[in-house]
Parts: sequence; structure tokens; C-alpha cells
Amino acid sequence: MPHRYFTTEIAGGTAVLRGADAHHLARVMRARAGDTVVLCDGNAVEYTATVTGFGEDCVEFAVEPGYPSAAEPDVEVTLLAGYPKQDKLEQIIRHGVELGCAHFVPFFSRYCVAAPKKEEQKNERYNRIALEAAKQCGRGVLPDVALPLPNFGAVCRTFDRYDLVLFCYECGGAPLRRLLAELPAAGQGRRPRIAVVTGAEGGFAAEEAAAAAAAGARTVGLGPRILRCETAPLAVLSAVMTLTGNLE
Amino acid sequence: MPHRYFTTEIAGGTAVLRGADAHHLARVMRARAGDTVVLCDGNAVEYTATVTGFGEDCVEFAVEPGYPSAAEPDVEVTLLAGYPKQDKLEQIIRHGVELGCAHFVPFFSRYCVAAPKKEEQKNERYNRIALEAAKQCGRGVLPDVALPLPNFGAVCRTFDRYDLVLFCYECGGAPLRRLLAELPAAGQGRRPRIAVVTGAEGGFAAEEAAAAAAAGARTVGLGPRILRCETAPLAVLSAVMTLTGNLE
Repeated sequence: MPHRYFTTEIAGGTAVLRGADAHHLARVMRARAGDTVVLCDGNAVEYTATVTGFGEDCVEFAVEPGYPSAAEPDVEVTLLAGYPKQDKLEQIIRHGVELGCAHFVPFFSRYCVAAPKKEEQKNERYNRIALEAAKQCGRGVLPDVALPLPNFGAVCRTFDRYDLVLFCYECGGAPLRRLLAELPAAGQGRRPRIAVVTGAEGGFAAEEAAAAAAAGARTVGLGPRILRCETAPLAVLSAVMTLTGNLE
Repeated sequence: MPHRYFTTEIAGGTAVLRGADAHHLARVMRARAGDTVVLCDGNAVEYTATVTGFGEDCVEFAVEPGYPSAAEPDVEVTLLAGYPKQDKLEQIIRHGVELGCAHFVPFFSRYCVAAPKKEEQKNERYNRIALEAAKQCGRGVLPDVALPLPNFGAVCRTFDRYDLVLFCYECGGAPLRRLLAELPAAGQGRRPRIAVVTGAEGGFAAEEAAAAAAAGARTVGLGPRILRCETAPLAVLSAVMTLTGNLE
């Protein structure tokens, strides 16, 4: 399998790779003119690219016409995750990128144990983790991690961006199978947008559950076993991708 | 929610809890006569139990008639997992117990990077992790972790114990949705037995995939994204539990 790199510099049958990836390809992989790699524009289009030359800190290519990335699901899933303790958000991001999640939005809520701290620095790190995971698992888009929302009200105010909001509540709710069966089909070439909302260690307050429902979310039950806050997002993302045919 | 403990000493309307759990209940939780807990016999039967007394290193209870644990799925899933590096098997066990897996069987195979080392000691540790996870997530049975099988041939020789063997292959296969739709219904009160087989970091050799199919496994594809060896088991367990109605 040829190596894959993300670059936005693809135009007119040529492309350029710069920075750490160029170094990796030229020095670590010891690529030579004529070698082939896959370039991805981060927008779900991939290109078979042939090395034509090496510049100062860059590699140049001739590229064939692009083709759609096969790795992107036909639903656009955003994970809104209660901010967990320790390095659990990193685990959630790594697993989530592999499972096809497009956007990650951490948030603080009433029962969060974690508190905001150096979030801009951490956000850079989270986005680097998402990029590395996307390269490793062969994604066609670069999933992004937003800065954390400050409270659950801010989470609810984003719900009208989605076709379906799945609020995963430890006190139970409807089965995912039923809610996803009702998902409106993608219209006009647009992928259905699904939001998955999961809590931090402390779960959700009853008022937060009520606010989510009032803002249009569907309350989802995940069964009788108590899932940890780092397990629930992966279980729901896996379930959503399975039920929409995007894990097969 | 009352605290939950596992004990096998339940008979004739009374029960006894010993060891670390008795210490936890008596000293840490400072239980008093008349307090109520849930006792589970590890065989999917639970009891509401009232503390009647404290002995030397034990707590005694009066128990009401048992009721079936609500947390057990109606499929009995065994995860056969290629032995991964570092502490990934521990992560897989923790997540897997929450997702309802009943048995864990690690194995060595051709492309495994990990090699057997102090496996009896490690096995004790893995079973302790499974027990702690089972208590935390409210399982009704104690999932067990077997000693690792030495090679993939030994894995294939276990396949006739299961009603359905799902061999998860990085080179693709049938959709889980289709294979699970064919699962024979539970007969005579016995839960259908499903085996999920996933690889270690190096994946499977073509001969191993052929041997699995020859031994009766169904080859499963998990889609176009490359799942790490610690992600694939969780994705498949989540998908199996979702599709059989055991994650709702």
C-alpha cells in the first residue's frame, strides 16, 4: 500500500508536500523520482502522485486526476463529548477518528470533574492527534477538534445544525436502532449530519437532559451496563456507523 | 443506587461476603446492620441483601429471593484477540467487559509482535481487571480471561463451540449486519454463542484467514478505515451488541 499524505497544494496536475511530511518522505522513506504515493486534499479527494523532484524542504509531484476517498462515511458525525479527566479525551479522539467521526467538540457541564486549563495549547495537541490518527487510518478528511464549549447551554444552541442529535443519557432513552431508522435520507448530495452527545465522568444533570430534549435532541439509552465516559462515545460511534452501513 | 458485590456464598436466605469486599463494605462504606446492598452470584442472579451482622473479616446478610441480572446480554460473546503490545489487552478487557463480552481468549499468531512472557502472572492480573470492570459496570456474570492460545491453529480448533464465528479480516469480508441477521435464534433457553476474532498489530496472514474460513468462521469486513488492534474489538463488540438489541 503506498504511503498517504495530506496536502492542500494540489493544482493543475502537480502537487507539493512540505514540512515534516516532506522530510519523512524524502529522508525517512528515501523516496526517489518516479516513486508513487497517495496525496489527499483533506476534502475527501485523493490523488495518485508520482515524485518528480525534491526542493528545499519540499517534494514535488505529478498527479493524476483525483478520485473520491473511499474511507469517508456517508454520514457526517460530530461528537460532542463531556470533558473527561486525564488523557481520556485523547483516547476518544484517536478511536473516534478511526471510527469515522468528522468533528469533535468537547464541552464542560455541570457534573464535569475536569476544569478548563490551557485549553488553546491542549487544542493544538488534540488537533495534532486527530491529524496523526487520520493519516494512520486512511481518512479522506481531516477531522477537527474545537475549543471546548463552556457549558451545556452552549452545546444545546448548536443542535439546529444537525439532522439528528443523539443525546446519550445514563438514565435511559430510545434505542439507537429506532432513532437511526428515522434518519432522513441525504438530500441534494449533502450527507446527513448527526451529533452524538456523551457525558463526562459525572454524567448529566436532569436539567441538562431536559434542556437537550427541549433543544431538539433525541434521548438515547445505551442499555443496562454502565459505560465509562471513554467507552460510551466509541460504542455509539461504532453503533451509528454500523447501522448506517459505514463499518462494512 | 446500592453498592454491588459478587459472592458465591448465597444459600437458604442468607449470604456472606468475605475478603477485600467485606473490608470495603464494613470499613470504607461503614455499613451498619439494616443497610441494603445488591449481591450477585456471578451467574446472572442478583439478590437484595440486608446486613445482619459483622464477623471476623466477613459481613453477613439476609437475602430476598434472587432475580435475573438485567445487565447480561442475550448473546454469549467470546472475544478471541490477537495478543497486542504494551497494555492494550488491559484496555480491550476493560472496554469489552462494559460492552457485555463474556469470555476473553488472547492468542499468538504469525504476525504478533508480542511474545509470551510470564503469562500466568499476567493472566491473574487480567482476571482482576475483568472483575473490577464487572463490578463497576454492573455485570451479572464475571467475565473470564483465558491463558493465551499458542498459535492460530489452536484458535481455529475452538470454533465448533460457537453458533457463529466472526473472523474480522483487514482485507475485507461480509457486513456484520448481514451475518448477524442469519444468527440462529436461541434454542431451549440457551443464549446463542458468538465468537469475535480480531488480530494483533500485524493483522492476519492469508493462510490464517484461509484456515479460519475452513474451520467454519465467517469473514467480516470492517470498512475502508484501518482500525488499530485495540479499536477493532470494541467496534465489533459494540456493533454485535447493537445489532442484537443488547446496547439499548
